[in-house]
Formats: sequence, C-alpha cells, structure tokens
Amino acid sequence: MAKININYNKLAAGYLFPEIARRTREFQEKHPNMVLKKLGIGNTTEALTPAVVSGLIKGVNNLADPATYSGYGDEQGNKKLRQVLSDYYSSRGIALSPDDFFISDGAKPDSSNIQSIFSSDSIVAIQDPAYPVYVDSNVITGKAGNYSEEKGEYDGLKYMPCTEENNFFPNLPKGKVDLIYLCSPNNPTGAVATHEQLKKFVDYAKNNKAVIIFDAAYSEYISDPKLPKSIFEIEEAKECSLEINSLSKFAGFTGVRLGWTIVPEELVAEGTEPGEIRNLWNRRQSTFFNGASNIVQEGALAVFSKEGLKESKELVNYYMENAKIIMKGVAALGITAYGGVNAPYVWIKTPGGISSWDFFDKLLSETGVIGTPGSGFGPGGEGFFRLSAFGHRENIEAAMESIKQNLKI
Amino acid sequence: MAKININYNKLAAGYLFPEIARRTREFQEKHPNMVLKKLGIGNTTEALTPAVVSGLIKGVNNLADPATYSGYGDEQGNKKLRQVLSDYYSSRGIALSPDDFFISDGAKPDSSNIQSIFSSDSIVAIQDPAYPVYVDSNVITGKAGNYSEEKGEYDGLKYMPCTEENNFFPNLPKGKVDLIYLCSPNNPTGAVATHEQLKKFVDYAKNNKAVIIFDAAYSEYISDPKLPKSIFEIEEAKECSLEINSLSKFAGFTGVRLGWTIVPEELVAEGTEPGEIRNLWNRRQSTFFNGASNIVQEGALAVFSKEGLKESKELVNYYMENAKIIMKGVAALGITAYGGVNAPYVWIKTPGGISSWDFFDKLLSETGVIGTPGSGFGPGGEGFFRLSAFGHRENIEAAMESIKQNLKI
Repeated sequence: MAKININYNKLAAGYLFPEIARRTREFQEKHPNMVLKKLGIGNTTEALTPAVVSGLIKGVNNLADPATYSGYGDEQGNKKLRQVLSDYYSSRGIALSPDDFFISDGAKPDSSNIQSIFSSDSIVAIQDPAYPVYVDSNVITGKAGNYSEEKGEYDGLKYMPCTEENNFFPNLPKGKVDLIYLCSPNNPTGAVATHEQLKKFVDYAKNNKAVIIFDAAYSEYISDPKLPKSIFEIEEAKECSLEINSLSKFAGFTGVRLGWTIVPEELVAEGTEPGEIRNLWNRRQSTFFNGASNIVQEGALAVFSKEGLKESKELVNYYMENAKIIMKGVAALGITAYGGVNAPYVWIKTPGGISSWDFFDKLLSETGVIGTPGSGFGPGGEGFFRLSAFGHRENIEAAMESIKQNLKI
Repeated sequence: MAKININYNKLAAGYLFPEIARRTREFQEKHPNMVLKKLGIGNTTEALTPAVVSGLIKGVNNLADPATYSGYGDEQGNKKLRQVLSDYYSSRGIALSPDDFFISDGAKPDSSNIQSIFSSDSIVAIQDPAYPVYVDSNVITGKAGNYSEEKGEYDGLKYMPCTEENNFFPNLPKGKVDLIYLCSPNNPTGAVATHEQLKKFVDYAKNNKAVIIFDAAYSEYISDPKLPKSIFEIEEAKECSLEINSLSKFAGFTGVRLGWTIVPEELVAEGTEPGEIRNLWNRRQSTFFNGASNIVQEGALAVFSKEGLKESKELVNYYMENAKIIMKGVAALGITAYGGVNAPYVWIKTPGGISSWDFFDKLLSETGVIGTPGSGFGPGGEGFFRLSAFGHRENIEAAMESIKQNLKI
C-alpha cells in the first residue's frame, strides 16, 4: 500500500504567489478597466542581449549538424564553461578549481536540492524573512519539524531574524546549528552583507563545523566595490561554505535556465575529508540530473565573453535604474525603504504599520500596483512589503506615478 | 556539526559507466592505433531534424525581442505544450487532461525524483536488470537498505528477475510492495511488455494499492501495433500508475533536455483522494524545479508538429536500422540475442557463458568494440551484454564487421 510522504502535509497552507495571483484576479474582475502595474515576482522582462542570442543560436546550430551534434553532456557541465567560470572568479581574486563548479538548470533547483547531501537530522538555520524555497525544501525532506499557525514558524528550524535593528543581516544563531542559509544581496530585503558580517558567520561555521549555503544569485547587482560578491572573498570560507549562483538575474536567463553551485574541495563537515562533500554533490547530480541543456550552456559561454559581460552589466544597470526610480518615489512619500541600492529589491516598511497583506490590498485597490507582502517570506517579514525592480521602465514609472497620485497615506 | 547523508555511503562502489571509461582508456593507451567502435552508452548521435531546429531557433528569437521575451514559465510547463501532449496521447486513444502532464528537463530527473513524493518506508520493487537510476535514487533517499557485496543486491529492495525464462518481463512481486518500477521497452534488455503482461501488474497494483512508475522513454521505438506504448493503454491503469517519458530518444534531445511525467488525476495511494498525488508532484516540482527551458519547450512543440513527428519517426527508423544490422551480425555468429526489434538495445547472451565483464574485456581487446556489461544493471544482468543501436551507421557497420572478423568464439 503506497503511502505518500507526509511531510508535504506540513507545508504551510498559503502559498505566497498563488495567493497574490488569486487576489489580483479577483480585483481585476471587479475593475476590468484598471491597468495593473506588476512589481511583484522578481521576473526579468528585457530581451536577451545580442552576444547571448548569438551564443544560443550557435548552440542550436551545433545540434543541426552531425559533425557538431552532441548528446548527453557531463552531469557536472561543459568543461569549457566550468573553466570559464573558474576564470571569472579568478579575475575577481577568488581561486577555485573548475572541478569545484557544478553547472545546473538554475539556482532554485540547487538551493532546494543541496540539503539532500546532508544528514536528515541536520539543524537548519534560515534568515527570517527568506526565499521560501529554503524552508519548503527542508519541510518536504523532514528537516523542519511541524508548522505552528500561531507563530507562523516551523518548530524544527532556527529562525535568524533580519530586522531594521540589525540592518537586515542576522546575528549569529543561538546554540549550534548545522546548515546556515545566507542570501546576499538578499531576497527579499535587498540588504547586502559586509565583509565583517560574513566573517563572523564563517568563524562561527568553522568553530561549529556548520556549513554555510550561500545564495549569491543577485551578486552582480552589487556596485559598491567594498561589498563582497562571493562568500569566498572571506578568508577560510572555502572550508565551511558552498555557493549557489545563476544567470537568471545577471543575463535574463529566468526562462532559459542556467545556474551553478560551487562546492570547494576544501569544504568539510563532521567526519569528512576535503573533497568528500564535493564528491557527494557530484554523485547527487550524477544520479538525479542529466546536465543543463547544451544549447543553454553555449548561451552561458557567451555571457562570459567580453561582449556578453559588457551587455549583461548594461542589463543590470537598466534594472538598477528602475530601483532608483522606485527608491526616489517612495522616499518622496515619506515611506521608509531599504535595499534597492546594491540589490534589485526595495523593502518598504508598510505606512502606518499595517500588515503586509493589508498593504497589498490597499496598494492594489488604490493604485493598481502589485507587490509582494513581506510576511510571505516568513514571520520576520510582517509589516514589510517588497517591490521588485524587474520590469519595463514604463511599467515602473507608471507604478510610481500612480502611487504618487493615488496612495492614501 | 553538519553531517552528511550517510545513505550515499551505501551506494555500491563500482559505477558502471566510469568503469567502462577507465578500462577503455587503459586499453586505448596500450593500443593507440586501434579505432574503437562505441556501442556502449545509449547516446544519440544524429543531428536534430529541420523542424525541431526551426522550433528551437524560434525559441531563441522570442527571447531576443522584449515583445516576445518570457522569463519564468510555469513549473509544470508551457500550457500549449501540455495541451499538445494531451492531444498526442488522445490521438493514440488515451484520454489524459493537460493538467496530468508535468514538463521537465528529462526522464532521468523525473525517474529519480518521483520516489520523493512517497513515504520513506515504501517497499520498492525493481526489475532486475534495470536502469541504475531507479536503484540509486532509492538508496540515497534511504529506501533501499544496505548493499550486500556477496549477493550484489540491496536488502531493502524487491528484485524482480527478468530472465530468458520469463522473456525478460518479471513475474509479479512476492508479497506486498508499494512502488513498482517498470520500463518498457526495457533498458537494458530491449524486451517490450505485452498488454496482458502489463494488465497483470495493473491488477496487482490495484489490489495492493501499489503505484507503478512506468518508464516509457523508448516507447517510440515500438513498431508492432499490438504492443502498448503507454501503461495508460491498460484498463484502470490511471488509478495505480504514473508514466515518465522524454524526447531524448525520440527526437535526439539527450543534450537538449526535455521530458514529462504523467500523473493522472485518478491515481491514488493509501488514504489519498483522486488528485492528491498529482498535487503532490505539482508541489514537488514547484519547490524543487523552475520549469524546463523556454527555448527547449519551443523545440518540443516543433517535435509534435506534423513535420516534426514525421522527421522524428525517420530518426527512430535510422537507429532501428542500426539495431537490425546488429541483430543480423550477432545472429550470423550464432550468438543468442534478445531485444532489438521494438527497442534500440540488443541484449546478448555472452558466448560460452563467460561473465559480463570478461566479455567486455574480450570484445574490446579482440574487436575494439565497446558495449555495456549486463551485470552493471544489476545481478540479473550477469552473463549478458548490451549493445546500443545509437550511433552513426558507419560506426555500427564497422563494429559488426570487426566482430565478424575478429571475435574468437
């Protein structure tokens, strides 16, 4: 008698984005003439750049000719791409072997699957608020315990509050934990960790043999040269950290699908030798994954060409110009806002201290603007609201104009 | 103190394909002038067809223009593609809702991840020999128990022997099991289940509330109209089965990456209502996956166009012509062979009853032909050897000519 994995029943009932979609649909039905301005999901909107398009076309054409056709590639990714990534990190002063890089179909699969190479009794610490995938993947695999409706928390997770008081970067966990998810630039708060802040976590992790799972998916949005783009800029981080990244936000690959996870040979856990954890991830990927699309990997190679890098940086600048417009708009209304400077997310404090979902409804009904309620990212997000800088310029401008004209605060 | 998932330590030490690569490399170093003929890994070699190339190029061009650019798609896949798949099955007399289809990046990820929606104490039955991924994914997630070197088996799995006596389709499992992996046309034996054979398993599954995980990745290689291409051709199969398929072997997508899993609304397990298991897989994919590449999905749509289907069938015919050449070649030498008629794999009995690996070494050293030792697919494969029909025609012909001239039997 086949039974289901009961951990699925522990997932908190309300899913953030479907609930947003439901409320939006309901509103639109009642107000069919209202033009909605979507600043909700962090989804890219601008075209792929010419260098990348050429790379992808080359990828397709390679497969159109038996002389250049390729079938299954290495599960770890194209050797050339792993070398190019190693060179790219090297150009930023970070020495990593191509063997430390594992190409995948994105940061979401990697950040959800990475827990599976660790013990099922691992104590998991997450930032609060956080990207829901860190929580849900640990719930489904039985590492998060049970959900308390009252607290809005899982009793098996260690929540690390990210608040105005700590500038949205958490204090060290109390007691010992095994796995620590850190995301910088942060989704949803837009906060970026400093070298000193990360150093404290690296020291903690080394002293407690914990492993830091560092999500750097927004690293290319950092323009301040003092802020670290990779956990591996911190001394000794390789011994206690792995890092996840992707081309989704750097090069508009949200629908194209390409990411990578760096598992340094030096990384160790309790009772393991250097190289063992890297081998574990290798074995995981070899069993559960069959490599990223060879077409997409050609596109990724093009991103790291001279032209591709230049164009991708322009793409980032475009979205960051959007962020500036949002920041300026909310500041003019006297709304307290965070992030938005080295990150594509603006994290606003709800005016009048109303709840995140109440502000969602208010913003939608008064201005037609859709954002993301902070409480959807965890209890620590209550009273906050995320505006995404991903969008066409005219959409962003229309949203801010409508907020300026119509929001009653 | 982070600890690793110790189930990884239970994986049997020797990996099939790396060991083949190692022995091949060693041989090639000693015999640098010998031209090797590779009939080992089931990897496609012929170019994508014109219709598919056009579809993929369209997919790339869509992303080059902000008016047609798309970012994140639905985790379940492009609505149009799910409809097209539903229509394709319908054209073969199988009624399935588009909502039953979940598009993915391939049959390997799906067949390795599918176990995760079921209880960790599930009793798992597998055909022996079998595609190693079924076994390894259950080992890593703790459902297979410990490996016995002596038996070459995991003590927690139920092995269903596939032998000459049962025409390589297993008898029903003894006692109750929860999950049953069936692959037809079979990798590695090339056997294809009849309607009656599948019906027995469907009846067993219904009576025992077991779930059949049906891998139909080679279904397009069936030319005999009497043989079922889908488990859903069997009455009541929807209530106890899910099915996995892919474009890898039908349209040469091994490197392009696109597959799908069908979870019918009707499918139930112990204590679940219709729709619940489908929802579980939906939730699993929404958490751990971010959709197949939108470029690749455009290519997939092209496969199911009139031209695309015609061209893909020609591709299948090409490889099946290879299979005929292999079958004829081994028959001329008096070697007993199975499969190869409605499947791209030829499963030969090692001449003189020598072990699978001894035959690998013998074939390589005497003829320069590389195949796959049957024992690499489980203990039931010992004494057998797989030859793959995937390859350029001249490679297949050269291999068979060398076997004819040089194999000492």
